[in-house]
Amino acid sequence: MTGDAGQLYGAVEGGGTKFVCLVGRAPDAVVADTSFSTTTPEATLGQAAQFFRTEQAGGRTLAAIGVGTFGPVDLQRGSPTWGYITTTPKPGWTNVDVAGYLHRTLGVPVAFDTDVNAAALGEWRWGAARGLDSFLYLTVGTGIGGGGVVGGQLLHGLVHPEIGHLRVPHDREADPFAGACPFHGDCLEGLASGPALRARWGRPPESLPADHPAWPLEARYLALALVNLVCTVSPQRLVVGGGVMRQPQLFPLIRNQVRALLNGYVRAPEIIDRIDGYIVAPGLGGRSGVLGALALAAAIGGD
Amino acid sequence: MTGDAGQLYGAVEGGGTKFVCLVGRAPDAVVADTSFSTTTPEATLGQAAQFFRTEQAGGRTLAAIGVGTFGPVDLQRGSPTWGYITTTPKPGWTNVDVAGYLHRTLGVPVAFDTDVNAAALGEWRWGAARGLDSFLYLTVGTGIGGGGVVGGQLLHGLVHPEIGHLRVPHDREADPFAGACPFHGDCLEGLASGPALRARWGRPPESLPADHPAWPLEARYLALALVNLVCTVSPQRLVVGGGVMRQPQLFPLIRNQVRALLNGYVRAPEIIDRIDGYIVAPGLGGRSGVLGALALAAAIGGD
Repeated sequence: MTGDAGQLYGAVEGGGTKFVCLVGRAPDAVVADTSFSTTTPEATLGQAAQFFRTEQAGGRTLAAIGVGTFGPVDLQRGSPTWGYITTTPKPGWTNVDVAGYLHRTLGVPVAFDTDVNAAALGEWRWGAARGLDSFLYLTVGTGIGGGGVVGGQLLHGLVHPEIGHLRVPHDREADPFAGACPFHGDCLEGLASGPALRARWGRPPESLPADHPAWPLEARYLALALVNLVCTVSPQRLVVGGGVMRQPQLFPLIRNQVRALLNGYVRAPEIIDRIDGYIVAPGLGGRSGVLGALALAAAIGGD
Repeated sequence: MTGDAGQLYGAVEGGGTKFVCLVGRAPDAVVADTSFSTTTPEATLGQAAQFFRTEQAGGRTLAAIGVGTFGPVDLQRGSPTWGYITTTPKPGWTNVDVAGYLHRTLGVPVAFDTDVNAAALGEWRWGAARGLDSFLYLTVGTGIGGGGVVGGQLLHGLVHPEIGHLRVPHDREADPFAGACPFHGDCLEGLASGPALRARWGRPPESLPADHPAWPLEARYLALALVNLVCTVSPQRLVVGGGVMRQPQLFPLIRNQVRALLNGYVRAPEIIDRIDGYIVAPGLGGRSGVLGALALAAAIGGD
């Protein structure tokens, strides 16, 4: 569905640092977009609603709005807190009814999922995972999160994946940094998120040179996590995005470590012979999340 | 499907130590069974074929045979080595055409999967995971393996899960044991399988008393793995079986560690309030594998 045909949808990518909103039909048919800092829930959700209300007032009918936000969130249909951000460590954002607020304010159906499941859906519909039956998406930035498709469906289950909170080996002699996660200390996010890099090395990660020892260590933790994903789900591809992954030296380091860690045990030519196509960057670049929210909306809106 | 109604199926659970075979329709409708030691592929598969040939000669028509074996195995439909055990460290069993041999010898359709996916299917159809949309099964014995159902389908993907080879934190000061996995050293199987327990403590695990420090350490490694499964797949239940789990003190130790490690982050009442029903023993006891193989056969045989 491209061009002028088909219904218009709204999309919200709710991140811990900024919100991105758009109105459109597909990646090449976006008619309006905006982004703004994440502050209080009232101000931030109010600003999102205002953007869509302005579009509606201009005559654009939105068939549905898709929302992917940071979490944890409640995805249990029938739960009284469905559509809420629940126990997030982000101050002020605990138990916030994101989906309900947008639905009540804008009067359109709202599809709701985690930011990473939305991004995974975007990559599946229009990006680096098109046509696959099973893949996982990992984003490495302010936080670390993951989602994906297994057996042709978005991963949900009991709650939703929390791949950032995987426990991985941490050699405290080689890396005495205790970890930055307020819940788990040295889980994956505690060791390898952007803020963990900044706390360990005392400077912003983007200022660390490409040959800094930070990067092989970062690649090691991410590779340990990817190996665990391969051993659990056996995905057909791993898509890895997020701000930290903008360091181009990381991909080859990670691929080499994954291959070394698996040590030939998982006998798939995709891993042994063609790992460059197995561990890949998002096809939609930084737009996976908001375009995935658009795909969420389209999924309930009839497209 | 119980009692005398319906077709008869053959089932093979191929383990690293023994093979179990049966002919039947359902857990309460087994008409013949046998088990024997795993020796060479020729002798062992020959003995399985002989068991079914005797049943066929006695007038029992098998609609299909289901096989769940130790791995790694090739499950890729269309692959020239579909139905093979591939890179197993078990001497003599590399590149053995298990499904093809039984199909050619017995002249019936053969369904083929890993022993743990078969056991997961058995638990899903008749055991502790009936009616769930998503659960994982872990077996802890001579090896450690896992499988499960996600979105109502057995987990396959690129190859199949290899949950025994997850990397988990290993505090070498508290536990200097280097790990027993020939591929990965201190992966989960290298730290927590039966042979790892025996090598670490210098005696068979079943001879270690219930208050031995071996058990809290074992529970710690298994809990770290289960936490990683929860964070990756968000299953609705975890079923944990295998010889090592016959130590009744392990379940409470594991449940406490899982709750402590998650530290309230995954806000599901199933984990926070009702973990006794979340991490459970197999409903089919030691028969999950062979009954799962029966379910595999029934799935291609029309039941």
